Amino acid sequence: MSKKNILVTGFEPYAGRGSNPAFEVTKALHGRTFGGMTVVGESLPVSLPGMRSKLFTCLDEVRPAAAVCLGLWPGEPMIRLERVGINMADFEIPDNDGILLKQTVVSQDPAAAQWSTLPLHAIETALLDAGIPARLSSTAGTYLCNACLFSLMEGLAARRARIPAGFIHLPYMPEQVAVLLDDLRAGKVMELHQRADVASMELSRTLRAVEIAIGVVVDGQP
Amino acid sequence: MSKKNILVTGFEPYAGRGSNPAFEVTKALHGRTFGGMTVVGESLPVSLPGMRSKLFTCLDEVRPAAAVCLGLWPGEPMIRLERVGINMADFEIPDNDGILLKQTVVSQDPAAAQWSTLPLHAIETALLDAGIPARLSSTAGTYLCNACLFSLMEGLAARRARIPAGFIHLPYMPEQVAVLLDDLRAGKVMELHQRADVASMELSRTLRAVEIAIGVVVDGQP
Amino acid sequence: MSKKNILVTGFEPYAGRGSNPAFEVTKALHGRTFGGMTVVGESLPVSLPGMRSKLFTCLDEVRPAAAVCLGLWPGEPMIRLERVGINMADFEIPDNDGILLKQTVVSQDPAAAQWSTLPLHAIETALLDAGIPARLSSTAGTYLCNACLFSLMEGLAARRARIPAGFIHLPYMPEQVAVLLDDLRAGKVMELHQRADVASMELSRTLRAVEIAIGVVVDGQP
Amino acid sequence: MSKKNILVTGFEPYAGRGSNPAFEVTKALHGRTFGGMTVVGESLPVSLPGMRSKLFTCLDEVRPAAAVCLGLWPGEPMIRLERVGINMADFEIPDNDGILLKQTVVSQDPAAAQWSTLPLHAIETALLDAGIPARLSSTAGTYLCNACLFSLMEGLAARRARIPAGFIHLPYMPEQVAVLLDDLRAGKVMELHQRADVASMELSRTLRAVEIAIGVVVDGQP
Repeated sequence: MSKKNILVTGFEPYAGRGSNPAFEVTKALHGRTFGGMTVVGESLPVSLPGMRSKLFTCLDEVRPAAAVCLGLWPGEPMIRLERVGINMADFEIPDNDGILLKQTVVSQDPAAAQWSTLPLHAIETALLDAGIPARLSSTAGTYLCNACLFSLMEGLAARRARIPAGFIHLPYMPEQVAVLLDDLRAGKVMELHQRADVASMELSRTLRAVEIAIGVVVDGQP
Repeated sequence: MSKKNILVTGFEPYAGRGSNPAFEVTKALHGRTFGGMTVVGESLPVSLPGMRSKLFTCLDEVRPAAAVCLGLWPGEPMIRLERVGINMADFEIPDNDGILLKQTVVSQDPAAAQWSTLPLHAIETALLDAGIPARLSSTAGTYLCNACLFSLMEGLAARRARIPAGFIHLPYMPEQVAVLLDDLRAGKVMELHQRADVASMELSRTLRAVEIAIGVVVDGQP
Repeated sequence: MSKKNILVTGFEPYAGRGSNPAFEVTKALHGRTFGGMTVVGESLPVSLPGMRSKLFTCLDEVRPAAAVCLGLWPGEPMIRLERVGINMADFEIPDNDGILLKQTVVSQDPAAAQWSTLPLHAIETALLDAGIPARLSSTAGTYLCNACLFSLMEGLAARRARIPAGFIHLPYMPEQVAVLLDDLRAGKVMELHQRADVASMELSRTLRAVEIAIGVVVDGQP
Repeated sequence: MSKKNILVTGFEPYAGRGSNPAFEVTKALHGRTFGGMTVVGESLPVSLPGMRSKLFTCLDEVRPAAAVCLGLWPGEPMIRLERVGINMADFEIPDNDGILLKQTVVSQDPAAAQWSTLPLHAIETALLDAGIPARLSSTAGTYLCNACLFSLMEGLAARRARIPAGFIHLPYMPEQVAVLLDDLRAGKVMELHQRADVASMELSRTLRAVEIAIGVVVDGQP
């Protein structure tokens, strides 16, 4: 029965990176159960129409009782719980199809923004209590992650699905930073002190953070 | 026989923190063997005379074939391999005895600085190859960690011990950042974006980094 | 005739600081004319009800043809053009009345967010062309600055005033960072490398940035 | 008479940048007088042999009573007073001749490091009192700036010239950051939040900082 599913999505690697912690966490959680609910893990393409199409299909097919979408924020040193998605796409780098959207909307929905309905402060408290660095954030950017959060809440509203749902940004995995440092070392045009994206979190801890977040969501369910 | 010992030191917690990754790694490595050599792990007090006294005693009693001293650099997101210790103590915060040394020397040694003799580039390469973020650094600060590096090399020179030795700075453990974030959340006078010390590394990865560093040192030995 | 006024607001100093660049710029611009329009500069109290009351009074009395509200973002190194205000107040530090609002709304308005109507990309281009570091931002935080932006656009909508209006965050003045550094130097519990709020911009350049922004707004007017 | 000269050097632009604040300050100070002494401003090439050759020629020809060498530290938000130069060249990026020195010495001098003899704490105090963000630093890096500081003190020692001399790192000029931001905006592979080198200081304030530093040096002279 559909009420038993938790949708977890993770973006595919992008911007030339070989991996994405969101993708890894999603794969690791697929099929796991939390309080009688089963995780359906789905990857999302790094493309506005592709992401929206896949996401809406997931909502229709999975009919989730909760949804947690995941993405990478390069340089973020901690779990970043997004409060809000805004109806704006303004990319700094091209998506995986080479499209560079500038100053446009995520959707024709008239709303300027959509709130996450995850219990963010309860999740933050649970994470800090578990020794996992975490914070609330009031911007998910203006790239695909933000578009995902906006689209998720827009799609749920259109389906009159009042479920806990939202978006969590994850740090780099340490191995990704090691690759970046190796590239810098190879005699490039930048010096290390010019780079702000060198923080990371162990994937096992990031995974535990998302498990805890899902646990808080499930416990908060009737 | 004394040639078989590797000295590893780690500072005690300081500045009101309840723990120190250097202290934890040192405890974890004590008694471990690498290529037939045994680690002697020793904690160091956060005090200039106390540190020097304990360190020199360790050199005399352990008579190490290699020495790796460890300390915390709050905010550093990666393993930081120190090239050099300078003969200067200029504290920003008091030590654990409440002493705030300003513009003074570490020792009466006439040298301005002492080089680490660890194979730093080989260690850096081994760490990056293992997916562990790492970098070389040209300052260990002007607090106890720098004084430890300077004193270590000074003490070895005085004993005519030409061994691989040096200092490695470690990031916070994630649990320490979680405590810091919890404090900030409690309604203090600072906002999170004013803090630069929120990066961390999993203790298991930090420990593996030091193991790899020791492995490189031991393999590089005749 | 009221169509000739440009409202510029700047917050008073807060969080124990003796000054605020937003306050200084507002004073400097008061009475200045741009393309036939006159700046009415008003300070705003650092308090949610106080700010809203003063702001709405300004809208009624000044009946501005454009509005640019200003605030400080400690640590921001450049002019930060805010895209959006969200209907959320979640303070990290108390306001000037000692109130620490948590997880509440800015207003009873049903909107989740309100867009700035300033020509942000044109302003960004003009600033960069003038050699002034600037960027667009998708969060004004969850303190008074964000509440000001949300309230400004809410108040204009309620008055059916379709004018260019929005919020710009300003960096510290260098003198403020010098004070902060002097405090750190006095033997406090933090080290400089733990602080992220040490960037600044010359007040004259910040002032010029706001003048340029107003110029773009005025030139973009029919 | 030679005792009346103050040598000020500034590096030429490098790493593809069109300008260098050190170069600008040096030009601005050339010919200025401080307490009866005249500034001789000289630019230095961004090349180890070129820099050393020019620097030593300057010492011989100018026979300065004080020397202040200047360079850029991209991303540094304040005046950075260098304590020490180390006898190591380990470049992250090529110099202006395309040379990428790795793990080598600055000179055959046996010293590991050379201290600045500028009255650094007095300069720091004077700068903070003047509202100019400033700090002491214990590393000038391992590129040309560090090599300059080491060579300067080495060269003075060889000439038995006991004068106040040292190196000061300067922040970007705001115009340089504006160019960097414009490049990022042009749809490159990096996002702004990945860059750590976006702080700056007004050239007029940077210039004043160096004037104040020279003033402290001159006042401290017999």
